[in-house]
Amino acid sequence: MTPSKRISAITGQGSDGWEVFYRSRAMIAKGIDVVELTIGEHDIRTDPQILDAMHAAALAGATGYSLVRGHPKLRETIAARIQSQSGVATGPEHVLITPGGQAALFAAHMAACDPEDIAVHIDPYYATYPTTIRAAGAHPFAIQTQAQNEFCPTYNDLNQAPQGARSLLVNSPNNPTGTVYGPDTIDDICRFVTDRDMWLISDEVYDTQVWQGSHITPRNSPHMAERTMVVGSLSKSHAMTGSRLGWVVAPVDVIEKINDLVTTTTFGVAEFIQLAGLFALGLGPEFENQIAAPFRRRREIALKILQDFPDITTVPPSGAMYLMVDLRKTGLSGEAFANRLLEDHHIAVMPGESFGRAAAGHIRVALTIDDARFAEAFRTLCAYAQGIVDG
Amino acid sequence: MTPSKRISAITGQGSDGWEVFYRSRAMIAKGIDVVELTIGEHDIRTDPQILDAMHAAALAGATGYSLVRGHPKLRETIAARIQSQSGVATGPEHVLITPGGQAALFAAHMAACDPEDIAVHIDPYYATYPTTIRAAGAHPFAIQTQAQNEFCPTYNDLNQAPQGARSLLVNSPNNPTGTVYGPDTIDDICRFVTDRDMWLISDEVYDTQVWQGSHITPRNSPHMAERTMVVGSLSKSHAMTGSRLGWVVAPVDVIEKINDLVTTTTFGVAEFIQLAGLFALGLGPEFENQIAAPFRRRREIALKILQDFPDITTVPPSGAMYLMVDLRKTGLSGEAFANRLLEDHHIAVMPGESFGRAAAGHIRVALTIDDARFAEAFRTLCAYAQGIVDG
Repeated sequence: MTPSKRISAITGQGSDGWEVFYRSRAMIAKGIDVVELTIGEHDIRTDPQILDAMHAAALAGATGYSLVRGHPKLRETIAARIQSQSGVATGPEHVLITPGGQAALFAAHMAACDPEDIAVHIDPYYATYPTTIRAAGAHPFAIQTQAQNEFCPTYNDLNQAPQGARSLLVNSPNNPTGTVYGPDTIDDICRFVTDRDMWLISDEVYDTQVWQGSHITPRNSPHMAERTMVVGSLSKSHAMTGSRLGWVVAPVDVIEKINDLVTTTTFGVAEFIQLAGLFALGLGPEFENQIAAPFRRRREIALKILQDFPDITTVPPSGAMYLMVDLRKTGLSGEAFANRLLEDHHIAVMPGESFGRAAAGHIRVALTIDDARFAEAFRTLCAYAQGIVDG
Repeated sequence: MTPSKRISAITGQGSDGWEVFYRSRAMIAKGIDVVELTIGEHDIRTDPQILDAMHAAALAGATGYSLVRGHPKLRETIAARIQSQSGVATGPEHVLITPGGQAALFAAHMAACDPEDIAVHIDPYYATYPTTIRAAGAHPFAIQTQAQNEFCPTYNDLNQAPQGARSLLVNSPNNPTGTVYGPDTIDDICRFVTDRDMWLISDEVYDTQVWQGSHITPRNSPHMAERTMVVGSLSKSHAMTGSRLGWVVAPVDVIEKINDLVTTTTFGVAEFIQLAGLFALGLGPEFENQIAAPFRRRREIALKILQDFPDITTVPPSGAMYLMVDLRKTGLSGEAFANRLLEDHHIAVMPGESFGRAAAGHIRVALTIDDARFAEAFRTLCAYAQGIVDG
């Protein structure tokens, strides 16, 4: 029996971009000491006090079916947090809890697009963007951005999208590039989706990791709340990746429809996890800064090291837990460089090509190992690249 | 901005079947003492030893991203369990872990059907069946079964399905009817989907709650494993409804495609929950019998009470945590009876009409409150119905 055409088409053909990652995992499995700078996961685990809060909630009886749209107190807390950060009037009726940001991303595309619609996203992009759009039955269209614009889309870039496209997905602070969209970029994005009468889906899961400038949510711009869905999560901000706790913020009528959807796709999120999330949010900005601090430190370390290598540059990483290193002067593709680096120095990074066409000739370095080991590996990487340039 | 047509069409028009339930909840909120026999949830919470195992796993570090398809040990354990129960060769490569059985049901329909396909299900049905099919972009087609056949579908019933229908969804032990399909029904189902070259989706989440006969999985019949997807869960068997831990069993190539799908819809299940599930399965059949025992007892209580009321009958409840009571001799619809019972006696049950057309004139009584209170409420209910018959 053959599975449906649509499920078979989700990944599309060709490489999934994870070859270097899998090669590095295979080397580690063989006992080789590989420095892993590939994936976006903290080098700490979820704080035990959050886990204790989860256990207490479970023992107190939060183990039955929960409200499908999420616990009222968690929805209230998230709404208040968003309102205080952004200024946009936001109540619990605008918030629906999902098992992680990825589930929110899927739900938002299901709510914005009908099958066969065109859903636009920015290149470079997080690996699941095109597959999520295909899973929702829509067709992904990638807007190529330029390294010289720090991979920020301009109105003209966006205007390459086909007429009739239904949604635009943006992500600031950005994975993989580490850029944080400034007011001009946000204005272009808002003007574009308004001119085209499109939905805007804004993935803001890195909103607590901003090193330069400040996070601006496009939902805050005039008349944007009615056409914007925001995807959020506690994964990155609270080192709770494995707890799968996220949300979508949207107009009330859309939340009602997403509630119909999630009743059939997930049927709610474990209440003890939601109460752990509520506890985590109660730890306040100090805790969030503490979770973000290592990435801020390692970014500084990397920028200092880069000063010693004139031909190796980076898009200034303004946020998130990554650094996009420009290796085009080596004449190598990101993929070729990453493979050689893995072979010769046992350092694993993600080729820029894994994130689309716009990041060709780059690599993405995750800031996710301890400072000393990171500094050593990053200096080795830069010296190796500079050596190739110098011939 | 309007949401997509497809998300707006999930619930369809008209009643969602939960009016009596919401009325009863509103009465409880006003302080009225209502006996709740509506929903399928245990009157116990998840066992603390399972919660302690979850906490230990979380503290030991199982808080990061897990493998999207599920923890290898959990998949192995579920595969071994299915193989030993059913005899069909089953390995971890046939199993994918989902956040609850509902997510597995959605994934199975996404894998079986393309948009606009027809997906068949049996009436009476669990409330989310038609909405899940619509969320997956397919069109639900309900096969009407007969009370005199204990709501089991015959080949002729099934043959009412339109030509070209892509999948058949069955559920034994059945919610809402409590029937367990015997060998003849299973044979008819297998013959029908084979004759029509359809996928079979078998929802077996009540497989540990069988009071008469034994659970037969259609995947066990010759050549059926290649066209069958089985939906399972720990919700009912281990009183873990709120933990959202389920799975789908399918041919290997389909599991690979479902893995592509869930990478975009949920991105895996919390590893600490998976390890709690592994611990729960390790508690063995004795624990599962202990969880099922109250429903078995209350079924006996109900059958004994029914002997005193000649005109009130039930489809013999062979499994699951419900009793379908036939009230047609009262001349009332299930809905009218449920509303009057709630008003006059503060007892809440689900009208049969909430589960489709085939169960009209019935009510579903959940066996989910303590024995003494259940016996009293059920006797009141029967006497009330008999009184209406007697005029």
